[in-house]
Amino acid sequence: MRMIDIIIKKRNAKPLTQDEFDFVAQGAAKGTVPDYQLSSFLMACFLNPLSPKETAMFTKAMAHSGGRLDFSKVTTLPKVDKHSTGGVGDGISLALAPLVACGGVAVPMMSGRGLGHTGGTLDKLESMKNFEVRVPVNLIYRQIKKLNVCMFGQTSDLAPADRKLYSLRDACGSVESRPLIVASILSKKYAEGVDSLLMDVKYGSGAFMQKLEDSRKLARALVSVAKQLGLKCRALITYMDQPLGRAIGNANEMFQAIKILQGSKEIAPDFYELLIEEAAAMLVISGKQKDIAKARALMEEKIENGEALAKLREMIKWQGASPDAVDRPERYFKNAPLTAIYQAPASGYVQHIDAKTAGMAAVLLGAGRNTMEDVIDYGAGIWLERKSGDTVKKGDTVAILYASDKKRLTQGLELFSKAVKIGKQKPAPYKIVKEIIK
Amino acid sequence: MRMIDIIIKKRNAKPLTQDEFDFVAQGAAKGTVPDYQLSSFLMACFLNPLSPKETAMFTKAMAHSGGRLDFSKVTTLPKVDKHSTGGVGDGISLALAPLVACGGVAVPMMSGRGLGHTGGTLDKLESMKNFEVRVPVNLIYRQIKKLNVCMFGQTSDLAPADRKLYSLRDACGSVESRPLIVASILSKKYAEGVDSLLMDVKYGSGAFMQKLEDSRKLARALVSVAKQLGLKCRALITYMDQPLGRAIGNANEMFQAIKILQGSKEIAPDFYELLIEEAAAMLVISGKQKDIAKARALMEEKIENGEALAKLREMIKWQGASPDAVDRPERYFKNAPLTAIYQAPASGYVQHIDAKTAGMAAVLLGAGRNTMEDVIDYGAGIWLERKSGDTVKKGDTVAILYASDKKRLTQGLELFSKAVKIGKQKPAPYKIVKEIIK
Repeated sequence: MRMIDIIIKKRNAKPLTQDEFDFVAQGAAKGTVPDYQLSSFLMACFLNPLSPKETAMFTKAMAHSGGRLDFSKVTTLPKVDKHSTGGVGDGISLALAPLVACGGVAVPMMSGRGLGHTGGTLDKLESMKNFEVRVPVNLIYRQIKKLNVCMFGQTSDLAPADRKLYSLRDACGSVESRPLIVASILSKKYAEGVDSLLMDVKYGSGAFMQKLEDSRKLARALVSVAKQLGLKCRALITYMDQPLGRAIGNANEMFQAIKILQGSKEIAPDFYELLIEEAAAMLVISGKQKDIAKARALMEEKIENGEALAKLREMIKWQGASPDAVDRPERYFKNAPLTAIYQAPASGYVQHIDAKTAGMAAVLLGAGRNTMEDVIDYGAGIWLERKSGDTVKKGDTVAILYASDKKRLTQGLELFSKAVKIGKQKPAPYKIVKEIIK
Repeated sequence: MRMIDIIIKKRNAKPLTQDEFDFVAQGAAKGTVPDYQLSSFLMACFLNPLSPKETAMFTKAMAHSGGRLDFSKVTTLPKVDKHSTGGVGDGISLALAPLVACGGVAVPMMSGRGLGHTGGTLDKLESMKNFEVRVPVNLIYRQIKKLNVCMFGQTSDLAPADRKLYSLRDACGSVESRPLIVASILSKKYAEGVDSLLMDVKYGSGAFMQKLEDSRKLARALVSVAKQLGLKCRALITYMDQPLGRAIGNANEMFQAIKILQGSKEIAPDFYELLIEEAAAMLVISGKQKDIAKARALMEEKIENGEALAKLREMIKWQGASPDAVDRPERYFKNAPLTAIYQAPASGYVQHIDAKTAGMAAVLLGAGRNTMEDVIDYGAGIWLERKSGDTVKKGDTVAILYASDKKRLTQGLELFSKAVKIGKQKPAPYKIVKEIIK
């Protein structure tokens, strides 16, 4: 089998076989196929998109390009994870993983880093001093056995083909292809060793797919291919035209997640709503709970009785940081020293806060990355005092911006001001969870 | 300007600008754009083909990626070259360059090597001991000044972007794109410093384009883009469904070319016919001759009076080999030691000898390359005793095959036997020059 023949076949829009996808994935993982052939192949796959059947084959090939975690020796509980397509202020995972683990399932959660306006769970976790996300496999097993929860970064052995191919797609202009996105996401999740998976597919300005219909297609493809891989899967299509919750950044998103697990749901009602929806869905998908309403009630109870917070405290301890952070978060998750207030330029209602613009403003403040080499300022970010539908008087504080550098603060404020729309009419409310794809 | 943006623009089928093509060509020539981005770009250009306008821009960009030969200080004669899209037995250039140089024009002819069933002029020239095709630029100038003819390989300074991009296309499945082919051919010819160009675009089984209509489209694109580059240009569309002449190989093609220039046109009438047509066309394109019939007559005269052979003798001397080769070619161009006769399996007419199969048989005998690393056996090859339309009796010699190795000889004979069709009906004659595109 020769790579050149596989490239030409795909270029000519002929369907590839499992053997051919295996050849590509092994070649990418082992370095036996040169980058220039892989990138040419990926462009051919972009312009002659993979069929659903081919997508499942490519996913399998990448999933099998390295090892697969196997929790069967450490737990008999269902193994469940969630994947979000990314958004602004989407720090749900920080509260979700420990909460769901209180529902009698194991949650080995593999996360990524932020890029552009989209934040990353690993970065938010690392805003805690000494919190270790590079967990060796044997320690992941031990922590799942004892705690039922572990949050970690992609290890070099899991789906190495995907890591290679994703970096080439990023450099070579073949990222926005639905079949390739599906194969990339699911190959990692499959290698993670879970049997159930919740997909949070966002739509709106701050999402990977802006249009609802595109998100719907992506969600359907993800669920269909996940099932072909033998995973139980559902997708929630969720709103990301405005930021989720009140915090955009890293330390401030950790702070918000801890406050929510402390029981202060009023701090960010939309965040709390989505947290409960996702947690309940994960319990139902995994088979642990039959009834979604009962699952929701159980999850609310686990917050109210302090179990979820205790689980987070344990996890933080196991992963090297100070467990005291969950009791006195204001001491551990400090904002950057310089602040700017964005004041309402007129009285009325907050009509809209554009997610992408707000996310890019947070990057300017120092909370994110434009390239993977950029260094994050964990204390930088935005706190939304007002959200869509809230009334304001001229001069009221809409948001507080934090940065460590005056120039960044000025640039961030200037961009953030373009995200906010104030008007006389009360805006129509929106649904956080728009649809469920089973 | 960023390569990733250019890739995405082309991927989205948006037209590129001259600046963008310049960025790609400079990046390829200087190594400032990585191979994986270039190959992804080329696949995008393959699947979203360049428009005629873009093709001209890309050609210019590649042509200007290195130096350009400038003959203005060494000659006031028109500078003219020919390019063939490649075929089997197409050793025309060996006789053509010295012949045309006798017509009062300068012929700086840059040629390439063979790959697959297609032979290469440089390989054929190198079947002469000590003949040097890597001629330094100052010696090319001197030889053109004194002789009006020089045959040489592509120097590293001429169109370096094309050399880089062609090797990536070859490795990454984006060769067969008409705009990319046009840009590749013409960027080299432009850099060569000629003002007039004859394109020999072949069609048929042994040609790069098998279908007449595809060759016609390629010829039209070549002529159109060449004119946009300020070159005078015409294309001949010529027959390559059967091999040209009697020789397929390297030493034997040199032998045939020399016999033709010695005046033995009966040795290969079709070769002779195409030689005169191409030589006359080059004189007319360059403006040296107005009338094609007079140009033909002049070229025939230059063979008959021995001037063309003398020119070849001089050229061989200048480029390091023994000039005696043109007088006693049988001593210098020896066939490989082992021979096999392909005998007619029945009586009748030779209906057809398939060019591609015969060319591949010659590669098996050792006369060609499957990869650029293969070593050529200059004496290996095929001599066609009979050609299409000739009568044969069962057992008559149709062809003699030469090799240095018994296994190669057997394999070559086995494949060659599939190329030949003998039948009762006299086959219809074919035209060597099918069309002229101006």
